Amino acid sequence: MSDAEFAHIDDEECRRFQVSAELAGRKWNAAILLAGARGARRFSEYRALVSGISDRMLTARIKELEAEGLIARDVQPTTPVSIAYELTASGRQLISLLHPLVNWSKARAERTELR
Amino acid sequence: MSDAEFAHIDDEECRRFQVSAELAGRKWNAAILLAGARGARRFSEYRALVSGISDRMLTARIKELEAEGLIARDVQPTTPVSIAYELTASGRQLISLLHPLVNWSKARAERTELR
Repeated sequence: MSDAEFAHIDDEECRRFQVSAELAGRKWNAAILLAGARGARRFSEYRALVSGISDRMLTARIKELEAEGLIARDVQPTTPVSIAYELTASGRQLISLLHPLVNWSKARAERTELR
Repeated sequence: MSDAEFAHIDDEECRRFQVSAELAGRKWNAAILLAGARGARRFSEYRALVSGISDRMLTARIKELEAEGLIARDVQPTTPVSIAYELTASGRQLISLLHPLVNWSKARAERTELR
């Protein structure tokens, strides 16, 4: 795709694009959304799939992603209560449109190894 | 696209995906790459298209994006010397695959306004 695809973008769209890219790119957010897309639902499952994150950070980021409408919290009336965190439609769309980054990163890593 | 697209992703790919998302999402990076895609070449053109960024921050981020191989610096032997900053192929690919964020952000803004 050439620059032409960006020619029509106005400053307001640029600002919103920047806000969204910085939301997705905020430390740990993409990894948490990816974990949700890979099937994580429980807190422990997110922690297992997002290597290196602390409980405190995971708790904070899940709250932020909830506030942004990208993750939904579902409290199940078991004893004790159990809580599941699932990507919302918006969260799923975001991680889905970031999927091409998987291949971009791979190609980039291979180029770096060739140097 | 369903979760199936993410089922095959292994932990190493996850880690690289996270690094790339956090590179793209680092404050100002996406806006600078977008400015380059919108035709910015001179420092002043980037500053004009990336509203709110300081000269000091723009200088630092352009250096980082150069080090990451996403922007290339071209020194032209005019008097005085003039410097152009252009997206590399890798930089162009990255901003191109982030393009869908423009529409995602727009739909998200519209949903937020309806609330």
